[in-house]
Amino acid sequence: MPLDMNAIRALVQDLPRSDSEVAAAAAGRQQMLTKPAGSLGRLEDIAVWLAGWQGRERPRADRIRAVVFAGNHGVAARGVSAFPAEVTVQMVANFERGGAAINQLCRLYGAELAVVPLDLDRPTADFTAAPAMTEAEFADAVAAGLAAAEAPADILVLGEMGIANTTAAAAIATAIAGGPPSDWCGSGTGVDADGRSRKAAAVTAALDFHGAALADPLEVLRRLGGREIAALFGALLGARRRRLPVLLDGYVVGAAAAVLHALDPAGLDHCLAGHRSVEPGHGRLLDRFGMLPLLDLGMRLGEGSGAAVALGVVRAAIACHDGMATFGEAGVSDKD
Amino acid sequence: MPLDMNAIRALVQDLPRSDSEVAAAAAGRQQMLTKPAGSLGRLEDIAVWLAGWQGRERPRADRIRAVVFAGNHGVAARGVSAFPAEVTVQMVANFERGGAAINQLCRLYGAELAVVPLDLDRPTADFTAAPAMTEAEFADAVAAGLAAAEAPADILVLGEMGIANTTAAAAIATAIAGGPPSDWCGSGTGVDADGRSRKAAAVTAALDFHGAALADPLEVLRRLGGREIAALFGALLGARRRRLPVLLDGYVVGAAAAVLHALDPAGLDHCLAGHRSVEPGHGRLLDRFGMLPLLDLGMRLGEGSGAAVALGVVRAAIACHDGMATFGEAGVSDKD
Repeated sequence: MPLDMNAIRALVQDLPRSDSEVAAAAAGRQQMLTKPAGSLGRLEDIAVWLAGWQGRERPRADRIRAVVFAGNHGVAARGVSAFPAEVTVQMVANFERGGAAINQLCRLYGAELAVVPLDLDRPTADFTAAPAMTEAEFADAVAAGLAAAEAPADILVLGEMGIANTTAAAAIATAIAGGPPSDWCGSGTGVDADGRSRKAAAVTAALDFHGAALADPLEVLRRLGGREIAALFGALLGARRRRLPVLLDGYVVGAAAAVLHALDPAGLDHCLAGHRSVEPGHGRLLDRFGMLPLLDLGMRLGEGSGAAVALGVVRAAIACHDGMATFGEAGVSDKD
Repeated sequence: MPLDMNAIRALVQDLPRSDSEVAAAAAGRQQMLTKPAGSLGRLEDIAVWLAGWQGRERPRADRIRAVVFAGNHGVAARGVSAFPAEVTVQMVANFERGGAAINQLCRLYGAELAVVPLDLDRPTADFTAAPAMTEAEFADAVAAGLAAAEAPADILVLGEMGIANTTAAAAIATAIAGGPPSDWCGSGTGVDADGRSRKAAAVTAALDFHGAALADPLEVLRRLGGREIAALFGALLGARRRRLPVLLDGYVVGAAAAVLHALDPAGLDHCLAGHRSVEPGHGRLLDRFGMLPLLDLGMRLGEGSGAAVALGVVRAAIACHDGMATFGEAGVSDKD
């Protein structure tokens, strides 16, 4: 059956949950390791969370897969980015040659990088005056994301590239979370106050044009998103259906996540926020999700780079959980 | 010449600075890499900072050395820790067998771990009623730290182990930074409110006993510190004299750093704070130093573990700085 809107809606039903028994066993192991209880802080929480989703008391990171989806945006013509639209294609080539930040980070942390360009020669329609994607285009993009989540992996890192896509993210966030568009429009790759005003004007025009159709989160994604954002949504959904834990990157990934969260408030339970972007809308989305990011390093690059840096923390959590001696094994006296 | 108080004081004079020309060259390279300027946030700052201290436009982390100093404390007899004093020796054995958190983290991030136990069978004197160390004992401990900083390294990670040493850290912090002792006394390895009161009472008694002698930061360290804290001070000083960049761990390392900072406000310019401990006094010390920690993961273990997790971030900074293509190399259009 080819994917269509109804089939996508069906995939969001009955999402599987974490294995609470395995998580409890992992939490029990943490209590026995040679350290004061709780003293590894979030490293302990990460290990227990991974255990529950992987269904293994000792979670693994033997195979980490990073997927970067790329798309082009009709709204780029409205002067919303500091870079020309051709940079999307150029950066995909840079990813393929190994020259971008995400390449260095994947090499460092032992992640396999897959780059998925989505019809870069066919930008989405300008969402201020039309749906960004037809239903068929949208379903193809979601399917690309679902497919990307099917490769064998212990952990999935999601990222994106697409000139003008923080404007699409802002439109999605405004439609889902409300508030003035200017609250959701930051500097992106580096626009000034005029650029931010153009972004907010585009979002305002889009909300006017699409109107009541935006009550449906999936329509928000089809009408205001880009192919890479629809694919991110598909990858988040596909990963969840496999119980594959996901590290989220910044604002654009957050916008895709906001759609799944709007469809099911527990839909992001298999995700950790890797890094809080400088983009102010991202912090607001994370608050909405109830997520505290692992890192806050002032990054705003995308490409999955913030999530990839957080792999260092996740690997640390796994290494301690798996490798530390217990009080009994080490002959260390427990608390008085 | 054997080390004595005057020789230690002399070592704090004329501390070398970062190489600003090399740092500027590294900052120039960051501007050319294929990303919007500034979009890697603190990863860019770390690379530039390392470049200046290492004196290399492309800093290295080929050799990362982690040193954990261990000491025992007379004040442990006052019920200030949740664990018995014998745990210091037991944990040193655990470090030597590879079973502790710091072992897993050093393995993960490719750091060489050196453990330096300092006269564990001879605890320092109870500082509420005597100087913790004689001048000779203090000089020996500082010398151990200086020696540890002499091994070849690109980056030094400093940590400690010593039952009761957050009480010593609290005493040092109160003597140097002022304020009520209770502000500087947290739960350490996990004491309750009564335990925290015993810690604050010990600090109050120490301030009364030592009085005006505490106007001298070096006397604060000798009278209230422990051997491992004096060694940390020596290692910080030795690293600075070699321009070796240091990643600081939590509260106890922070107390050693506070002594160097009190002697020279620029004395910690070669240090980055790896992680902010849950121990509330640590955040206050970092504010005093003007340092924003790289990580804030709710850890409070010591052993250098917070600094070691931050190695993942430092390695990411180096990997991006060194491996990314420039706009020219990649044929990517720069900002409009």
